[in-house]
Amino acid sequence: MAVSCEGWIRTLSLSPPTLQDNTSDADRLKYALKKKLNTDSVDMDLSMLKQLPFLLREWNFAVRCVLIKDKNRWIVTGLTERNSKRVISGLAIDLGTSRVVLRLIDLASGSSLSDLAFDNPQLAVGPDILSRAHACDQPGGLEKLNRLIVDGLNQHIEKICRSCGLTVDDIYLVSLSGNTCMTHLFMALSPHWIIREPYIPVINTPGLERASELGLHLNPCARIIIFPNIGSYFGGDLIAGILFSGMHHSEQTSILVDVGTNAEVVLGSKNWLIACAGAAGPALEGGVTRMGMMAGPGVIDQVTIDPESNEIHIHTIAEEPPVGICGSGLIDLAAHLFLNGMIDIRGMFVPRKCGNRLTKASGEVIFEIVPAEISGTRTAITISQADLDSLIRSKAAMYTILETITATVNMLPKDLATFYVAGTFGAFIKPASAVSIGMLPDLPAEHYQSLGNSSLQGAAQVLTACDSLDEIDRIRDKITYLELNVNQEFMNRFSAAKFLPHTNRSLFPSVKVSA
Amino acid sequence: MAVSCEGWIRTLSLSPPTLQDNTSDADRLKYALKKKLNTDSVDMDLSMLKQLPFLLREWNFAVRCVLIKDKNRWIVTGLTERNSKRVISGLAIDLGTSRVVLRLIDLASGSSLSDLAFDNPQLAVGPDILSRAHACDQPGGLEKLNRLIVDGLNQHIEKICRSCGLTVDDIYLVSLSGNTCMTHLFMALSPHWIIREPYIPVINTPGLERASELGLHLNPCARIIIFPNIGSYFGGDLIAGILFSGMHHSEQTSILVDVGTNAEVVLGSKNWLIACAGAAGPALEGGVTRMGMMAGPGVIDQVTIDPESNEIHIHTIAEEPPVGICGSGLIDLAAHLFLNGMIDIRGMFVPRKCGNRLTKASGEVIFEIVPAEISGTRTAITISQADLDSLIRSKAAMYTILETITATVNMLPKDLATFYVAGTFGAFIKPASAVSIGMLPDLPAEHYQSLGNSSLQGAAQVLTACDSLDEIDRIRDKITYLELNVNQEFMNRFSAAKFLPHTNRSLFPSVKVSA
Repeated sequence: MAVSCEGWIRTLSLSPPTLQDNTSDADRLKYALKKKLNTDSVDMDLSMLKQLPFLLREWNFAVRCVLIKDKNRWIVTGLTERNSKRVISGLAIDLGTSRVVLRLIDLASGSSLSDLAFDNPQLAVGPDILSRAHACDQPGGLEKLNRLIVDGLNQHIEKICRSCGLTVDDIYLVSLSGNTCMTHLFMALSPHWIIREPYIPVINTPGLERASELGLHLNPCARIIIFPNIGSYFGGDLIAGILFSGMHHSEQTSILVDVGTNAEVVLGSKNWLIACAGAAGPALEGGVTRMGMMAGPGVIDQVTIDPESNEIHIHTIAEEPPVGICGSGLIDLAAHLFLNGMIDIRGMFVPRKCGNRLTKASGEVIFEIVPAEISGTRTAITISQADLDSLIRSKAAMYTILETITATVNMLPKDLATFYVAGTFGAFIKPASAVSIGMLPDLPAEHYQSLGNSSLQGAAQVLTACDSLDEIDRIRDKITYLELNVNQEFMNRFSAAKFLPHTNRSLFPSVKVSA
Repeated sequence: MAVSCEGWIRTLSLSPPTLQDNTSDADRLKYALKKKLNTDSVDMDLSMLKQLPFLLREWNFAVRCVLIKDKNRWIVTGLTERNSKRVISGLAIDLGTSRVVLRLIDLASGSSLSDLAFDNPQLAVGPDILSRAHACDQPGGLEKLNRLIVDGLNQHIEKICRSCGLTVDDIYLVSLSGNTCMTHLFMALSPHWIIREPYIPVINTPGLERASELGLHLNPCARIIIFPNIGSYFGGDLIAGILFSGMHHSEQTSILVDVGTNAEVVLGSKNWLIACAGAAGPALEGGVTRMGMMAGPGVIDQVTIDPESNEIHIHTIAEEPPVGICGSGLIDLAAHLFLNGMIDIRGMFVPRKCGNRLTKASGEVIFEIVPAEISGTRTAITISQADLDSLIRSKAAMYTILETITATVNMLPKDLATFYVAGTFGAFIKPASAVSIGMLPDLPAEHYQSLGNSSLQGAAQVLTACDSLDEIDRIRDKITYLELNVNQEFMNRFSAAKFLPHTNRSLFPSVKVSA
């Protein structure tokens, strides 16, 4: 996605003032820009005005301007000498609850200079949104959480700049995408009402702000584009994902699913978009991937089971001795257990097929994935019947949400042209496994597209396309948010989806279970 | 000028959020305002956003909003409870080189609450623009001058608020008009290039800024409207004067003259405006009213001479014993000396007529206005031939400027429908006297209109009319600035105007000199 965007950077040679042409310095520059940009509104900050007469004369009135467009208004966010070789850079921020990723971009070429990821320093206060939102109700709590993330960003921004031979002053434009709560904490806005019925954010459309006002140490005139949200459960990270996927430009109907703590889903085409978030489904409490551990060295991320020998083959991250299993590994495991008849359509372990891998401890049925002897932790890696039940409830909720949202437009999940899977989950999951357990619809593998970190990608894209501020507003305004009513119909669908792959087998023709 | 301006203040009762209507607090307010104002752009500051959810809930979603419109964008600068009785106020500032005048205004009714004037604290650094601009070339000079005026404003703003039972937090909107240099010093912009050829300001159109960014202690979201200028010699105070006069709405051609250190002139109608400033005329060096002292108790402001007895009748300010004479007194004096034949058409004292009031000291011819016995200073109050010559050069320059600017549109000064006289000079001068010496054209007295402090009045008017920001921009953009070329034609006119009332007596038919 390395598209140069002429619009952010313009070079100008102004005619120096004379007695006959005595327009002021600022208005001289503004007039020239208005003509070049074909606009009647160009603004600049007071701090830039203060330096302007000195700079223009030092540079013989030949300048390079960095600009950003906010609706009808262009704002000058930076000035250099016309022929300066200094890199004019932008910064995309994916503000995740757990991880924050920065991407430094050369605004002239649109190319990426460097990425840097770090743990969200707010983890010290609470692991998830809920605990952090509650911490904000303590005196000074919001300020503390805000300072943690702003300080963390400043530290790492300086680091990423240094790694590229730049300074923070070389950053003129920032874009930030994050979920609604994280965006509020970053802006020091109270998340109190986000987590309480009827779940109201302080703001849906933050738009363009001065980066300095939000405490970021960048070029003093730098602006920050903060992605809008649809509500408490559908954040700017998803809007960034839609932007990056391009589904809002397509004639055909696609779906985008982001599975983190919640499942967030957008369905649509160039003409319409509808969205919903899975937090409304009671079965999703605790999250779709609750049981899986975070990815890390030694974590099992792929599982296959030999249909002949029932032998389990695992792959671990960094190929270290196994220490646990993550979401994608679990789905692989469940898929292969099912395809090999080791669990039945209700997800119950089949003792006859599982053999001595199945044990009972404190009344719980336990299945051994990796024996203690070859485990990195020297204890067996296992999964209980209860864990499996939980996974099945989660996959059922996922499918029910997909079915519900597609049903609102009289479609079936299997009719979708493209199925975008966003986030870490999307990057590692094997669609075939998710299809096998009936978590995702039975589409040909090539219909599935993993978007990777689409929040970061969308944030980066905004920095390289001149009309993106308008575009993200248009995306937001186009979305119809669907409250998932957990009514009888939803519960019926959910019950039908609690079987493997589904009560209605005709929905999953490709799934073949060996006898 | 007490016009209520609905546009700045709007009351709203928002429907409280529900699960079905879960728009954020800020967007809920913005949508309601957009609908009410018929606009697609409403912005608010981050500091307001931070308080918004608490305030809306405390007030049951019923609010009173203070707004300001900047081109197509409305900005919320204040919020109170819907039925709050707190006064929402605005502040007009006339930022004069010598005096600063504040006017506190109730924005709901448009009525004036109080005025407060104080000496410009920058007088401590330099008495005039030139000396202050030079002081800015010293290290820290600009910062010092800026701090002086900003601190002075803050002190007196607090004072005027207190006198009305208000706090500075009750001020949501400010307008400031001043000459170009004073405006720059207030904004901490360097006046270095204003006073050096080709006389270039940093900015012509400051527009709308946050008052806090300029160091003013008001409501945190308050905005300030800073009047634009045409150039170094034609400042925002004049644009404010034009706005207040209303000459830009008139079908007929009027003129507005502001005489301070320079003479600034605008000529025009609803269709066109041309302007010039007298600093370009060499005879004006030192100023039109150089000799006059500042108005104050005991200063002679009116003079008449009995045509029979040649006795001089004076009026002093506050009717104190006379201590000196100010500009309007001098013009009265010169007019009556001339009308009584005590000075001739060249402005030379006529010894036969002046009698023993005329003496000679150190080779100078001196005329006694007030004898030592009745003077408040115990020394005679006098005027020398050299003083009179200087006054005549000034009046000639004034008339030449008027003649030159009217000639550019093929008119004569005597053809003008209305002659607005602005500033202190305009408030005290007797037009008949100025006409008698040929300083102002021979128009019937009713054509002259004194505007008083039109800079303050214009600034106040902006606060009570919703489209005034646009209107002052339109005025500025309409003005054609005329560089006064001191060419042969100008010098010829100037020479002709150095006689009393003029070489061409037919221009002043009403002036009758007694034998």
